[in-house]
Amino acid sequence: MATKKTSSSAGNMLIAQSGGPTAVINQSLVGAVLEAKESGAIRRIFGARHGIAGILQEDFINLRRESPATLERVAATPSAALGSVRKKPSPEDCARLFEVMQRHDVRYFFYIGGNDSAETAHIVYEEAKASGYELRCYHIPKTIDNDLRENDHTPGYGSAARFVALAFAGDNLDNRALPGVKINVVMGRNAGFLTAASALGRRFPDDGPHLIYLPERAFSMERFARDVQTTFRRLGRCVVAVSEGIADSSGTPIAAAYTKEVDAHGNVQLSGTGALGDLLVEFIKAKTDATRVRADTFGYLQRSFFGVVSETDAREAREVGVRAVRLALDDAHTEGSVAIRRKSARTYKVFFERVPLRAVAKETRHMPREFVARKGNDVTPAFVEYAAPLVGDLPPIGRLKGLAVTKG
Amino acid sequence: MATKKTSSSAGNMLIAQSGGPTAVINQSLVGAVLEAKESGAIRRIFGARHGIAGILQEDFINLRRESPATLERVAATPSAALGSVRKKPSPEDCARLFEVMQRHDVRYFFYIGGNDSAETAHIVYEEAKASGYELRCYHIPKTIDNDLRENDHTPGYGSAARFVALAFAGDNLDNRALPGVKINVVMGRNAGFLTAASALGRRFPDDGPHLIYLPERAFSMERFARDVQTTFRRLGRCVVAVSEGIADSSGTPIAAAYTKEVDAHGNVQLSGTGALGDLLVEFIKAKTDATRVRADTFGYLQRSFFGVVSETDAREAREVGVRAVRLALDDAHTEGSVAIRRKSARTYKVFFERVPLRAVAKETRHMPREFVARKGNDVTPAFVEYAAPLVGDLPPIGRLKGLAVTKG
Repeated sequence: MATKKTSSSAGNMLIAQSGGPTAVINQSLVGAVLEAKESGAIRRIFGARHGIAGILQEDFINLRRESPATLERVAATPSAALGSVRKKPSPEDCARLFEVMQRHDVRYFFYIGGNDSAETAHIVYEEAKASGYELRCYHIPKTIDNDLRENDHTPGYGSAARFVALAFAGDNLDNRALPGVKINVVMGRNAGFLTAASALGRRFPDDGPHLIYLPERAFSMERFARDVQTTFRRLGRCVVAVSEGIADSSGTPIAAAYTKEVDAHGNVQLSGTGALGDLLVEFIKAKTDATRVRADTFGYLQRSFFGVVSETDAREAREVGVRAVRLALDDAHTEGSVAIRRKSARTYKVFFERVPLRAVAKETRHMPREFVARKGNDVTPAFVEYAAPLVGDLPPIGRLKGLAVTKG
Repeated sequence: MATKKTSSSAGNMLIAQSGGPTAVINQSLVGAVLEAKESGAIRRIFGARHGIAGILQEDFINLRRESPATLERVAATPSAALGSVRKKPSPEDCARLFEVMQRHDVRYFFYIGGNDSAETAHIVYEEAKASGYELRCYHIPKTIDNDLRENDHTPGYGSAARFVALAFAGDNLDNRALPGVKINVVMGRNAGFLTAASALGRRFPDDGPHLIYLPERAFSMERFARDVQTTFRRLGRCVVAVSEGIADSSGTPIAAAYTKEVDAHGNVQLSGTGALGDLLVEFIKAKTDATRVRADTFGYLQRSFFGVVSETDAREAREVGVRAVRLALDDAHTEGSVAIRRKSARTYKVFFERVPLRAVAKETRHMPREFVARKGNDVTPAFVEYAAPLVGDLPPIGRLKGLAVTKG
């Protein structure tokens, strides 16, 4: 239900999306828009196209004019309906932002995104304060990387993790049918949460992924080859999950040699190329006696695939949008982000809390120690317990009993 | 219902799976096993592990001992439950096959697979006849490539095509949110049916894929760059579907420079590497003014992904297994394959027919001329009409009306 209390800062609202799209980021957009309508405290509801790039160009759409049916269809559609951007605003950009905002009497600003987007919201808030422009700034969390600080988990992660779990469940069966070494490269620049979700597809003791490499542990090519060799000799096959962000002991990404592109936030391009997978394949071919060595790079499929959504993720993504609007209308604070916390470890239940922008901006969190197996090439049961409710039930996997026929 | 007529060739049955797994190949296995049980005409039901490799090693399991519940769970599980293989039997192999078969009184042989597997079944049949071993041989169709002759379409295609359509629908939205050039490489060595399915995800006139390249047309790098440039200038973005099997005018696969592996049927390895996508990205970066150029290679995900199944495909895959057993029990013929034919173009309806093994073995079919757009970089509405019922309904795609706000 809406907080009916009228904010002292009456005015219009502007919402935008930023960073990598997810399967449920539009749920947050729609949650915020519906809550703003419901509240009665906000007059006009603007959406900026392509995040702050659209604000700078005054490229706004009227979200009050979208029908409830359209909004619900958009909520269930992956990727960012307003368009997205990767851009960090300069002080000059900010001056221009407030000029545009003032022209439309924007007093509530919502930015849906990950840590870089929270940083942008924080910069906008601080610059607004410094320049005397009255603006409430709220960040709405979103990232398949699950790497926002202060959060138990983030909207977008559950659905992407579901995709990864289903992909590995199927690929493990594929590899069982036609044995060999199969390496799958999963998104995750600094945090291994998404790659770790590959473990959720396991059902039988010999199921892959048999090895999981996360950016949280230094990656050694030699050690990797030894691990693969050991598994291949034991099972005659090996399925490997590798995070795109794996780096050597000096912190240099293994993929770094193959990429030059860097975005406005200083992130090196890791996705959209098969180079890391191919490099690992060549190494395994050279260093082990494995035959039929293949790699797939899941790439953008895992963040915008149509039809693979975790119900829990969709529900929570909607809710953080709603909560952000409620927080913005509450006079207690003028900025913040909505954090998802887990109530109890036993049965899955969450609650939502305001945290200041600086608490989630810029820096990210990593897989906690207790989620990474001691050997550094797998996850722990604690991780599976943590992630399973976020991903939802997976379909049952059938396996023949396979009673051997006595040889004649 | 089963044909109750007892075959004159009473004996045991052996079934195996071969070639690339699919999401529904186990439906065919289970369809055949249940029909064999039902028929009362077949005594023992053996499954060979990993196709003819398992027969050579006498690695059989007793499929009569699998519970109905297990069989149904297996039917709904992707990949080949018996294990698969890519192997073409030599005359010596065949001698050994009959030795093993005779030991177990195998008189019915079912081989589930594509054109290479049909060729294997044909070789086995001919060798059996030549050596006086009484054996009925039936091929059960399966291939995501949809390239078996005599068939309107093949089991496995609908589900893989559904994956491709959903992936492109989501990726098009991703590309709309963060514009650039996105190239997706889809499986399909010689036939473009699976790549063509990328068109099924389109809903709005500006939706991608904006360009579709099939192995049926000679691929020119220069022409490709011009096409991308034109689309990019028009829309500020471009989504491209490329078949892994695209080849230049001399017939040399564009990916050939990057791969050396060849299987027993003489097929060059195209999947399991991102090389083709990366090569195309570099070319587009060099030859156009497009920025943010990325490639994803769908790889094995599209054939064994868990949870993306076309209902029609699953039902028909079950049915061809049933029909193969009925045909084998009918004394009219001693060999053949089950072909799927479409009854009418208006409303989707199929029927099943026996065709001789040689009619589907070895050679494959391609996209008919009327399915490929004249310019060679798209499909026609006729293709979409053909493929849509095989893939099933796709989820609705929401798009904001996006009423522009007047600039202040």
